[in-house]
Amino acid sequence: MRPVSIIGIGSTPFSKLEGKGPVDLAVEASIQALGDAEIHPKKIEALYLGNFTSGILTGQEILGPLVANRLGMRAIPSIKAEGACSSATLAFREGVLAVANGVHELVLTVGVEKMTSASTSKVTAALASALDQSKEGSCGLTFPGVFAMMARRHMHEFGTTREQIAMVSIKNRKNGVKNPLAQFRAEVAMEKILGAKPVTEPFVLYDCCPISDGAAAAIICPTEMARKLSTKAISILSCEVSIGNASIDMMSDMVSFPATVEAAKKAFSTAGLSTKDINFVELHDCFTIAEIIDSEDLGFFEKGEGGLALEKGLTQIDGKLPINPSGGLLSKGHPVGATGLGQIYEVCKQLRGEHPNQLDNPKIGLAHNLGGTGAVCAITILSRNF
Amino acid sequence: MRPVSIIGIGSTPFSKLEGKGPVDLAVEASIQALGDAEIHPKKIEALYLGNFTSGILTGQEILGPLVANRLGMRAIPSIKAEGACSSATLAFREGVLAVANGVHELVLTVGVEKMTSASTSKVTAALASALDQSKEGSCGLTFPGVFAMMARRHMHEFGTTREQIAMVSIKNRKNGVKNPLAQFRAEVAMEKILGAKPVTEPFVLYDCCPISDGAAAAIICPTEMARKLSTKAISILSCEVSIGNASIDMMSDMVSFPATVEAAKKAFSTAGLSTKDINFVELHDCFTIAEIIDSEDLGFFEKGEGGLALEKGLTQIDGKLPINPSGGLLSKGHPVGATGLGQIYEVCKQLRGEHPNQLDNPKIGLAHNLGGTGAVCAITILSRNF
Repeated sequence: MRPVSIIGIGSTPFSKLEGKGPVDLAVEASIQALGDAEIHPKKIEALYLGNFTSGILTGQEILGPLVANRLGMRAIPSIKAEGACSSATLAFREGVLAVANGVHELVLTVGVEKMTSASTSKVTAALASALDQSKEGSCGLTFPGVFAMMARRHMHEFGTTREQIAMVSIKNRKNGVKNPLAQFRAEVAMEKILGAKPVTEPFVLYDCCPISDGAAAAIICPTEMARKLSTKAISILSCEVSIGNASIDMMSDMVSFPATVEAAKKAFSTAGLSTKDINFVELHDCFTIAEIIDSEDLGFFEKGEGGLALEKGLTQIDGKLPINPSGGLLSKGHPVGATGLGQIYEVCKQLRGEHPNQLDNPKIGLAHNLGGTGAVCAITILSRNF
Repeated sequence: MRPVSIIGIGSTPFSKLEGKGPVDLAVEASIQALGDAEIHPKKIEALYLGNFTSGILTGQEILGPLVANRLGMRAIPSIKAEGACSSATLAFREGVLAVANGVHELVLTVGVEKMTSASTSKVTAALASALDQSKEGSCGLTFPGVFAMMARRHMHEFGTTREQIAMVSIKNRKNGVKNPLAQFRAEVAMEKILGAKPVTEPFVLYDCCPISDGAAAAIICPTEMARKLSTKAISILSCEVSIGNASIDMMSDMVSFPATVEAAKKAFSTAGLSTKDINFVELHDCFTIAEIIDSEDLGFFEKGEGGLALEKGLTQIDGKLPINPSGGLLSKGHPVGATGLGQIYEVCKQLRGEHPNQLDNPKIGLAHNLGGTGAVCAITILSRNF
């Protein structure tokens, strides 16, 4: 396999974007990415699109051909990839493999989700299609319930405190303030979180990511070509996927996602790196506790010590390992099928030195994208190529 | 890229399969394919699943991880591919590319759809998600309307007769009689078709494929490995995809699908073959007129002569180019996200000499799978490998 790089990125804001459907959003992010790479749409040889709930929420499928048509692309192959909230990174990975193996030279990958035009109950039902309907769905379980149970178990098992869990929200809301793409751009104080109305114990609203619209895109090509075409190309050191348990009754414990552990093992191995080499992380904080669990599953902290690491400030922007400098899903928003490429967009911006919360000279970043109750996880490691 | 082969196939019947959800059906077809190949599920290195309407009709996504969990597979990558009615072949192609390029050795591809548990109006709405909702959907157009317009135009343009169009149904219903997997297993006479109640002029019920449940699966591996593992392996000479127009207002005429023309060009070129080399075809006869148009777009007959070819008996089982010896979508059924792999299953059965409508010593077969109003087309050319 030959080395592959990202030569263009684009993203809509992640927010309630009225009057724009999934095709509009995907086209907007794609045009940005094509403009960033200075590549004409007719040069693109394949389109891999990630999306989760478009069929259920907007009644529109075949998004790939619709986007390609709108962009005036040629008669190229296109598929939509679905893997719940990791759909975008799954699409991205198929594109990476196609370029790495010489099937294509220039590929557009785009993730998109349009959620806010549907009622909250319809969105909740759509998201629940990532649970096992034959077991969890039929019990009325939803994702805030799943992650709240995991929070309770993490507190019980390791003494993680309610305050530590709340600190995820405080940190990510603070990071979101400067991010022009973020849905929430205001800080939140501990007292406000602890005094807020419960959603699913121990969670309040501030522990849960919002319902969002959005799209993000990346143009990929062989690294050799990238060096000629761009002065700001980003190398894809690895992009690996693993399934885990698609329902929580299959979890051996309630404090870890085996899909993350396995995908991380593969991603570090493919890249020839270890956790020590990673300068910062964008990870899947769909709920506050998820950031703590993910940071442990990825190997950055011992199991049970994620809350403490947070309390010590290690994951702040100025900490040893900044986590979610973009604001994460909690602050930036979570248009589910776009999120993975949104993370990759944020990592690229940091590595290019163009981020609103710019870190000091980062060289390698990691993006972690989780689907379902750990049904599938996709991890991407990126580095500067200039 | 190294040569790739199919070493195991499986299929449920295509029919109304009560009490079985999409995961059950996909698992059933997969177990058959694994048994056919004598490969343990733990040996599988990736699972590519094709599905179109599961989110809308059953509220269940993340089908790949659910199927993999049920089969006891390892922590492998898995995605769902969607491209309307061509979803299964899109999933198959990603699997073929992964094996051809050495990413994986043994891959399971499975297509599945569960449609009959929903109301007909809900199914019609789900299928309409493969139309452009911003244009066609908002006018109330559905697929029987699209294809009926194409039939009218084909009749007007080339003098294709109502009787010729009906002959597609007569032939495919006759072929379905012996196929144990087919939903309809009774012949139908010309008078019955011509006297039946209209659906969308000029179509009656016999011009339209049914609503079906079903799943089909194939195990793929490098041809070198296939020769060691199997005495009945089938070579994948090519599997190519092209997008076309995702809405009918973009069609330059109403008698051809550019996606088919482009995908065929690529598929023949990759395989180093021409139409003369193909012994039989399974093609996407979602409506009677589709078979006529597809047979022309694929290059087997001049544009406008598909109806005449049929009348001459050229596409009968004992004709020069048998088309849909399985009974096709019209007789065998059309569980949309399973259909592409269902066609590949039928082609393999013919090439292995195991088909209920066995042709005389066929060596090369072609499967043609179309999504939307020609939004995307996937074509696979298979040959004997023994």
